[in-house]
Amino acid sequence: MSMSGVIVRRLAVIGVGLIGGSLARALRRAGVVGEIVGVDLDRDNLVRAHEFGVVDCGAETLAAGVAGADLVFLSVPVCAIPAVVRDLIPHLAPGAIVTDGGSVKGEVVAACEPLMPPGTHFVGGHPIAGTEHSGVEASFATLYEGKRCIVTPTPRTDVTALGTVVRLWEAAGSEVVLMDAEKHDRLVAAISHLPHMVAYALVNAVEGYDRFEEGILRYSAGGFRDFTRIASSDPAMWRDIALMNREGVIEMMDHFAAYFATLRSLVAAGDADGLERFFRESKESRDAIL
Amino acid sequence: MSMSGVIVRRLAVIGVGLIGGSLARALRRAGVVGEIVGVDLDRDNLVRAHEFGVVDCGAETLAAGVAGADLVFLSVPVCAIPAVVRDLIPHLAPGAIVTDGGSVKGEVVAACEPLMPPGTHFVGGHPIAGTEHSGVEASFATLYEGKRCIVTPTPRTDVTALGTVVRLWEAAGSEVVLMDAEKHDRLVAAISHLPHMVAYALVNAVEGYDRFEEGILRYSAGGFRDFTRIASSDPAMWRDIALMNREGVIEMMDHFAAYFATLRSLVAAGDADGLERFFRESKESRDAIL
Repeated sequence: MSMSGVIVRRLAVIGVGLIGGSLARALRRAGVVGEIVGVDLDRDNLVRAHEFGVVDCGAETLAAGVAGADLVFLSVPVCAIPAVVRDLIPHLAPGAIVTDGGSVKGEVVAACEPLMPPGTHFVGGHPIAGTEHSGVEASFATLYEGKRCIVTPTPRTDVTALGTVVRLWEAAGSEVVLMDAEKHDRLVAAISHLPHMVAYALVNAVEGYDRFEEGILRYSAGGFRDFTRIASSDPAMWRDIALMNREGVIEMMDHFAAYFATLRSLVAAGDADGLERFFRESKESRDAIL
Repeated sequence: MSMSGVIVRRLAVIGVGLIGGSLARALRRAGVVGEIVGVDLDRDNLVRAHEFGVVDCGAETLAAGVAGADLVFLSVPVCAIPAVVRDLIPHLAPGAIVTDGGSVKGEVVAACEPLMPPGTHFVGGHPIAGTEHSGVEASFATLYEGKRCIVTPTPRTDVTALGTVVRLWEAAGSEVVLMDAEKHDRLVAAISHLPHMVAYALVNAVEGYDRFEEGILRYSAGGFRDFTRIASSDPAMWRDIALMNREGVIEMMDHFAAYFATLRSLVAAGDADGLERFFRESKESRDAIL
């Protein structure tokens, strides 16, 4: 491999699952990374990542994994990111950049940035991509192609480190959007966290509806199943997200509840024109993102 | 075609779109119907239905369409069903059965049953099947295969007429469930009408969230698009459903709102165990219907 296009000579991927594994595959395919070292608490997953060629080697410890890395990518549960950063800091090479793929940014950036020793850098990131599957088996090189990746610099962020992170995501095929971490958290509260809260509550409400002796969910057709697919997401992950982005989630839940109450009053009043207008506006917004 | 398996000699389909066209195709394929006459306000649609062989002939008027039919199937907007029944009654053959595919049953059955002259019969029905497409082009013979069809007899329903309707849906491949119309309306309020209300409100809430100058929906990934697909449904149809099943829809909206408020208080309290339990119960219910 020619080193001319290399952005990162030694990349450490902490957590080699769908997100970390796909980034490793994408960057290798793009020819922008020298060596890839993987670290994973799940030893079997790490062995498979090595066998599949997703990483060049698996490190036994965080210390060994990040040693000599010029860039460390964290794809671990979002609640765990600050603790992992704290643990790996003593082993970082001079000039190393630490970045992440966590789906909450405000608390993560606020916790991690002040930890970094002089000459090392933290840059927050969040690729808007994923599937409902997990593990290195689920990873693929084109996961990020044509997707947006939000990178959340602060006024203190090193411009060169920021440029490296941006170029990496671009090499993976993403369109990079720079955004304040606070704004990011409000945005994902709206387009991702709120829908999950709604889906979880909807399934529990329908299941808990006790007018029928028999389980009414068995009458559900494809529409209900599609609509509630995201309620099958990992409960521990969503617990963490709800806790980490509490303010944004609460704000959007209240915002939604107000619209839902408006719709309820249109139904209760039998307001045909108002109902059709409400549904039509929604359909037009929805159709615009098809 | 042998007439030995024939359940209906002359079938009139009023509204030859996805629902009516698919039933016609399925019954013809099953060899249980002699002649199929179509009626449709959309003349072009009716011409295509004839060209495609979905109907043997298209009738110019409701009177001509139902003349001599032993079974009339109504697949017209649910609000229009009682008026159409009123219009076709003078032209019904003795012994004729009128049935429908409307997604609200209580008001429809209560309005239509008393209209029927002696010796003719109304039986309410609702196949739990469909796609987001419409028109006779969207119809196909296997739409009802393996799906449930709810038929809603009353204490006054003629048993022979009921048996004919049940055998028709079974011939189309459906599993028929007999249910009180009121219970049906509560059930579809839960598994279909509530999810639509939630999806419409969600899209409007997210679109109306004005913290960002730019349209935040453009950041949405596949999960949001899948989740909100049903918000692209026909506004006029859903206006009618919300009006016709107002009581059931309101009850389920309030039921959902209570669960949503519980989840909101778990988030606000930062109750990690409570959140994980809420999400896990939902995931278990959802995974059970995969």
